Amino acid sequence: MTTSIDRLIAEIAKLPGVGPRSARRLALNLLRQREQRIPSLISALHTALETVKTCNVCGSLDESDPCKICTDDGRDNGSILVVEDVADVWAMERSRAFRGRYHVLGGTLSAIDGRGPDALRIEPLLQRASSCKEVILALSATVAGQTTAHYVAERLAESGVTITRLAQGIPMGGELDYMDDGTLGAALSARVAY
Amino acid sequence: MTTSIDRLIAEIAKLPGVGPRSARRLALNLLRQREQRIPSLISALHTALETVKTCNVCGSLDESDPCKICTDDGRDNGSILVVEDVADVWAMERSRAFRGRYHVLGGTLSAIDGRGPDALRIEPLLQRASSCKEVILALSATVAGQTTAHYVAERLAESGVTITRLAQGIPMGGELDYMDDGTLGAALSARVAY
Repeated sequence: MTTSIDRLIAEIAKLPGVGPRSARRLALNLLRQREQRIPSLISALHTALETVKTCNVCGSLDESDPCKICTDDGRDNGSILVVEDVADVWAMERSRAFRGRYHVLGGTLSAIDGRGPDALRIEPLLQRASSCKEVILALSATVAGQTTAHYVAERLAESGVTITRLAQGIPMGGELDYMDDGTLGAALSARVAY
Repeated sequence: MTTSIDRLIAEIAKLPGVGPRSARRLALNLLRQREQRIPSLISALHTALETVKTCNVCGSLDESDPCKICTDDGRDNGSILVVEDVADVWAMERSRAFRGRYHVLGGTLSAIDGRGPDALRIEPLLQRASSCKEVILALSATVAGQTTAHYVAERLAESGVTITRLAQGIPMGGELDYMDDGTLGAALSARVAY
């Protein structure tokens, strides 16, 4: 292995979930057809670096700031859906289930990682919440997600805005036998009229 | 999602074993700290594209052609180890078990993928084999690997060079209970004096 191949492998290995073995495999795949593959990847990275911005309103990523969702006149200003991460915005958009605005916190509160309220975009959310009707807390159903949701809800309480959260229950296609006790308990206690 | 983000995701999704979901996750990871991460990745790709060459002797990848292994005076010219792929050269070099020369075939024979003998670097191997003592067939212990080894061995037969293959048996740390019947059978029939 040479210096430039090693360096490429090291760069690829910085990606999340890519170990040394995968990094070697990915680098080799690029190098095998390097004349076709590498220039188009460089070009895509270059364009992304030049054009992608963080939206100063919602915290999502887009080619414009404010982003297309924040400036879309067809979307409802009355509700803000709060998510941890940009990936969650993309997931909600793919579902086409929500037509309001988003707010990306940028993570969850975490004592272990030393991430307190100041590391999240909570202040901007408080400002935005004052001019809307409903804030939907769409954080992960994990301990970290729910701790963060609880904290955000507390901070929002004095603004008087309606605060909701996503329903918990059996996911589509979920088999009861494979569900954990917590999910079954939550689904049972939140049962609805048939 | 915007055009340049989509394009980056599409480029990343071309990598082997990276589905749409992983591609989104990897793209987002790069975009989150884009000012730090993307330029160094572009630079590594650029350097690799500029410097990496395919060695015309052995078929491996290096910054020089012929490669460092082919031009290393300290290595034994008497034996050539035949592998399917550049990754196999790297694996053998990591093991530090071999000090001869390599020959990369560039794959295995495959009727399904329409890869015949002409698609592999077999002719150059025949030429090299005429001036060495031993050719070690280090192909995968799969049907495709062994079919290819058989074909290469047949082609090499008339040159009179000694042809060997890697030993088959229980891998280091392997538990008998977890070995397949084929491996157990091969290990038993190739048993050696203790």
